[in-house]
Amino acid sequence: MTLQVGIIGTGMIGQDHIRRLTQVLSGVQVVAVTDINLERAQAAAPAGAKVYDTPHALIHADHVQAVVICSWGPAHEEQLLDCIAAGKPVFCEKPLVTSAEAALRVMEAETAFGRRLVQVGFMRRFDADYRRLKAVIDGGTLGAPLMYKSTHRNASVPEGLYTSDMPLNDTLVHDADISRWLLGDEITGVEVRVPRRSTRGNELRDPVMVMLHMTSGAIVDVEISVNIAYGYDIRGEVSCETGIAALPNRPATVITDQFGIRQAIPEDWRERFIEAYDQEFREWVVAAGQGTATGPSTWDGYAATLVADAALRAVDSQNLETVEMIDKPGLYN
Amino acid sequence: MTLQVGIIGTGMIGQDHIRRLTQVLSGVQVVAVTDINLERAQAAAPAGAKVYDTPHALIHADHVQAVVICSWGPAHEEQLLDCIAAGKPVFCEKPLVTSAEAALRVMEAETAFGRRLVQVGFMRRFDADYRRLKAVIDGGTLGAPLMYKSTHRNASVPEGLYTSDMPLNDTLVHDADISRWLLGDEITGVEVRVPRRSTRGNELRDPVMVMLHMTSGAIVDVEISVNIAYGYDIRGEVSCETGIAALPNRPATVITDQFGIRQAIPEDWRERFIEAYDQEFREWVVAAGQGTATGPSTWDGYAATLVADAALRAVDSQNLETVEMIDKPGLYN
Amino acid sequence: MTLQVGIIGTGMIGQDHIRRLTQVLSGVQVVAVTDINLERAQAAAPAGAKVYDTPHALIHADHVQAVVICSWGPAHEEQLLDCIAAGKPVFCEKPLVTSAEAALRVMEAETAFGRRLVQVGFMRRFDADYRRLKAVIDGGTLGAPLMYKSTHRNASVPEGLYTSDMPLNDTLVHDADISRWLLGDEITGVEVRVPRRSTRGNELRDPVMVMLHMTSGAIVDVEISVNIAYGYDIRGEVSCETGIAALPNRPATVITDQFGIRQAIPEDWRERFIEAYDQEFREWVVAAGQGTATGPSTWDGYAATLVADAALRAVDSQNLETVEMIDKPGLYN
Amino acid sequence: MTLQVGIIGTGMIGQDHIRRLTQVLSGVQVVAVTDINLERAQAAAPAGAKVYDTPHALIHADHVQAVVICSWGPAHEEQLLDCIAAGKPVFCEKPLVTSAEAALRVMEAETAFGRRLVQVGFMRRFDADYRRLKAVIDGGTLGAPLMYKSTHRNASVPEGLYTSDMPLNDTLVHDADISRWLLGDEITGVEVRVPRRSTRGNELRDPVMVMLHMTSGAIVDVEISVNIAYGYDIRGEVSCETGIAALPNRPATVITDQFGIRQAIPEDWRERFIEAYDQEFREWVVAAGQGTATGPSTWDGYAATLVADAALRAVDSQNLETVEMIDKPGLYN
Repeated sequence: MTLQVGIIGTGMIGQDHIRRLTQVLSGVQVVAVTDINLERAQAAAPAGAKVYDTPHALIHADHVQAVVICSWGPAHEEQLLDCIAAGKPVFCEKPLVTSAEAALRVMEAETAFGRRLVQVGFMRRFDADYRRLKAVIDGGTLGAPLMYKSTHRNASVPEGLYTSDMPLNDTLVHDADISRWLLGDEITGVEVRVPRRSTRGNELRDPVMVMLHMTSGAIVDVEISVNIAYGYDIRGEVSCETGIAALPNRPATVITDQFGIRQAIPEDWRERFIEAYDQEFREWVVAAGQGTATGPSTWDGYAATLVADAALRAVDSQNLETVEMIDKPGLYN
Repeated sequence: MTLQVGIIGTGMIGQDHIRRLTQVLSGVQVVAVTDINLERAQAAAPAGAKVYDTPHALIHADHVQAVVICSWGPAHEEQLLDCIAAGKPVFCEKPLVTSAEAALRVMEAETAFGRRLVQVGFMRRFDADYRRLKAVIDGGTLGAPLMYKSTHRNASVPEGLYTSDMPLNDTLVHDADISRWLLGDEITGVEVRVPRRSTRGNELRDPVMVMLHMTSGAIVDVEISVNIAYGYDIRGEVSCETGIAALPNRPATVITDQFGIRQAIPEDWRERFIEAYDQEFREWVVAAGQGTATGPSTWDGYAATLVADAALRAVDSQNLETVEMIDKPGLYN
Repeated sequence: MTLQVGIIGTGMIGQDHIRRLTQVLSGVQVVAVTDINLERAQAAAPAGAKVYDTPHALIHADHVQAVVICSWGPAHEEQLLDCIAAGKPVFCEKPLVTSAEAALRVMEAETAFGRRLVQVGFMRRFDADYRRLKAVIDGGTLGAPLMYKSTHRNASVPEGLYTSDMPLNDTLVHDADISRWLLGDEITGVEVRVPRRSTRGNELRDPVMVMLHMTSGAIVDVEISVNIAYGYDIRGEVSCETGIAALPNRPATVITDQFGIRQAIPEDWRERFIEAYDQEFREWVVAAGQGTATGPSTWDGYAATLVADAALRAVDSQNLETVEMIDKPGLYN
Repeated sequence: MTLQVGIIGTGMIGQDHIRRLTQVLSGVQVVAVTDINLERAQAAAPAGAKVYDTPHALIHADHVQAVVICSWGPAHEEQLLDCIAAGKPVFCEKPLVTSAEAALRVMEAETAFGRRLVQVGFMRRFDADYRRLKAVIDGGTLGAPLMYKSTHRNASVPEGLYTSDMPLNDTLVHDADISRWLLGDEITGVEVRVPRRSTRGNELRDPVMVMLHMTSGAIVDVEISVNIAYGYDIRGEVSCETGIAALPNRPATVITDQFGIRQAIPEDWRERFIEAYDQEFREWVVAAGQGTATGPSTWDGYAATLVADAALRAVDSQNLETVEMIDKPGLYN
């Protein structure tokens, strides 16, 4: 009854997932790890876990029942295809892959296999606040959703490592995925506008504003600011026909002191989404134990890739860049 | 059509009311001033106002149609009786008088005169937030009010000048008056409890907790803290049978920065109640122009005096001290 | 010392201003009225006010020291030019005029006169919440403003009378003006996007999203929804380099009942901005008494006209439509 | 590595804990159940669990490593003593026992055993909001805590089953325990006041106000309303020397609609504290696995019993009823 999992990639996020699967969740055991740096894999391996030389060896090991991919993006396609070939459920951290073509190849393999095996790491869908927000929208008492404002603010990003493309091809995917999910809609076009630049990021293109045009006609308005200094602040507000529904301030003690009546802001994504990550894996463990996946799919990873591509085109063209998806395979309905 | 007003007492509060009557409000003119310190009266007198040697002379001057008393408390009784003898409307800053007997003498004179002339300076009744709160209670949708929590916090009080009795005989009167008004009820008993002392006030008895027992059976729970450092924070929450109604945070810009998501706190009572003071005098000017008064009456000043007396007894006895009022003269219904 | 004012136009807004100038404010008297419908003028005239047959006669009457224009927009240009010719201060309800050319003609007359005489009715600049917000931005502790989100929601608009152009040429001007004022910036371009249509407005183009591009590079993001059912909801949030500043929820009793912990929403613009209107005229009366004007100027009315024109072009072109202003005359600095 | 647990009592709360230990938590297995109604025990037993005829048999069964007591209060003493005799960790739902003498007997047995075995079910200590609140107080930046306001509101209670004593001997224990824990203090005296009665509870004594006097001098002010109709509303606010810290509104979607800007209220204690219950057992499983207990102890259960007794005396006497505890055994420091 305990799911035996192998971990590919033991960097920061891989180590955190090992901790989660080992110490927080029930019904799961980490039995195998690998990393491009085998010493790091050795150090991260929990008691009783075997260290493999290659992802391929880990994926095909008999005692490994399901796989978690935390390697870097360009390695994902091959590892995902390997998992599908082995018929093993796989959790893949974002990005699913790094090109639309790669996403289509993974999707083709999975549909040929005939059952969902791939789950992508869009953890916001497992956050209690987002789930309550979706429940309100889906409840229908506020009428159809017409606009969604998504705000994505980071206190800071690593200088030099975080480039001007990354708000659009790395950060935006969370807002894009959650918009599609909240509204039950697909993205048909992307526009990007670049406001006055923050002096905190030197030459970085920050902030950026993105408009996502949806199939229903709804428009999503995204603000991405990655050097806002004061904390990690994720907001979302859906404008419907007869009312508005929004994420709450994160719960925190209400302090009244010389700075006013106030609630703290999370420091970073770990603090904000730690419970969402736990829930994401809790549900994955159940699904993988049944030989399949739940939540964000290869189709959602494909959509994210297309949006990132369109956003990069749009920032150059300053035009509406269309997103054209293939017909959705029945597997993903 | 313009009300001609004489001011008795030109200290800080008297000067502020001269400014208000001269620069803010319409339909009113300050034509006379006096003060125990005539130089100060001279300095405070607006253009065209005559300085009188004594309150008596000012009150009886023909061109003075209505009087504002801002002298110290022990002088109020004689000045009020003089105004009533002259048949002139009078606005009297709190305290109305300094003993229950004095209050009864003023009440007797006013009822003998046969029309309300006296208005007491309980400005909270003119504050928009308290008025909305009362409207909700009176609307009745939440059922009968059962409890009221009144919180009264000052950033600091002048050391040496502000004594341990003053939370009970000076500060409490605002909470007592607003409780009677909000609940449409009278106070029948007072209890006082003294929690752990704040080290910020040295030997000062601070904070104190007061319970006011009302005729209806409702209980009012008052917290008075006079050295809370962070600002002037007035809160009020009414618990009714099927819901709760509370004062809002004072409106202020919502700032999100390194101190959290927050709203500022007023610095002192001037900032918090400046508009209530304006409104209080706006309504007084109209009533005085018609030869009478509105809002808090001699009866309310009498009640405040009894509550202060009972509170001082209660802090010593640690028992419930009853408040016994005479039958309410018809003039005050 | 009392300003003698003539009112042109005694429809709903004209009547409200007569009430305000007569009953609320000090130092001002309505001495003359006129209207295209003289019976309506007669009915609205306060005691002692003379009814004039024409705006021209009213403007040039000797006892009229200052003028308030509440007629319909197409009549404004001639009336404004008449006031300037007479050298009389004039408060003009929005729109200043109905074309950029007309605005330039008024501006030319006023600059030739050599002193500001015209004040335009953008009342938001006099609202306490907006003023506090501007004070925070100008204080500079949050760094430079980079984006501003302005939300403008009406419960409903009169069916048939309110056309699809009006969100852009009538409603938007408030957001445009307040953006220019809050950010201390000018608008250089306008984009319009049309999301999924609300079914509550039938064929009405509602909601609309507008982006205003500012000289500084800042981008203003406006949501206009005119059939939102739940109330009149005006929100504003400035994203700066190191923090965010936003309008508070309007102050209202905090009620906890079967609908949750909640604060009421104003019903309409009268409820939301009644104090701003009072303050607007309070300051105008002082300025007009000194023979001039304060707050929003002919220049601001000109800017509003250009933005409305650009917004109408932008909704058709779906492109960025530029706004080109003449050099700003020194009179308006 | 998996803790084998026996459950005594399979009523509503017992069934919920079986679900929690079986489906939510890791490292634990329910291997035995018993109930006064054996059919009910049979129905509630998860796969693989043995049903015992008596608590005694279950407690002493070899495969049972730790016990959860969910029987009714009068049975607790004997079962707790049995567990201690067997040297087995035991989680006991509140009340620990039903008299001070019984509590002392359990304490004596546990101290004789020499290691904590008993954990009492005060789940609020495991709630994230309360923990953050305590962290703020303990952090010390607001100075010493002087007062604490604890509000405990139930939508309704079962008519006929819930008596007038129960706010004081059943409901109050949560507020009493959390006050001791938040302030790091003990209760020395209890006062009770009975405000105007809610008409929603017929003859029920509802609401009640309780004052808890603490060793430090701090005073805790408790409002208990058990028929408030609108929901389950738990609030807490600590007044310190230089600031205030309070529980947040529970996180919930912020909806703006015809009822205002609002957040929902939990329906009952299950909705409000579901995560606290999970966390409570998560930490118990770890401690019991190490042969001991964590969090609320026999000492805390003893304190709760004394407070309930004092509260019942105080409602009759209307006086301050003192709470006298024995010296605290070192085991509980």
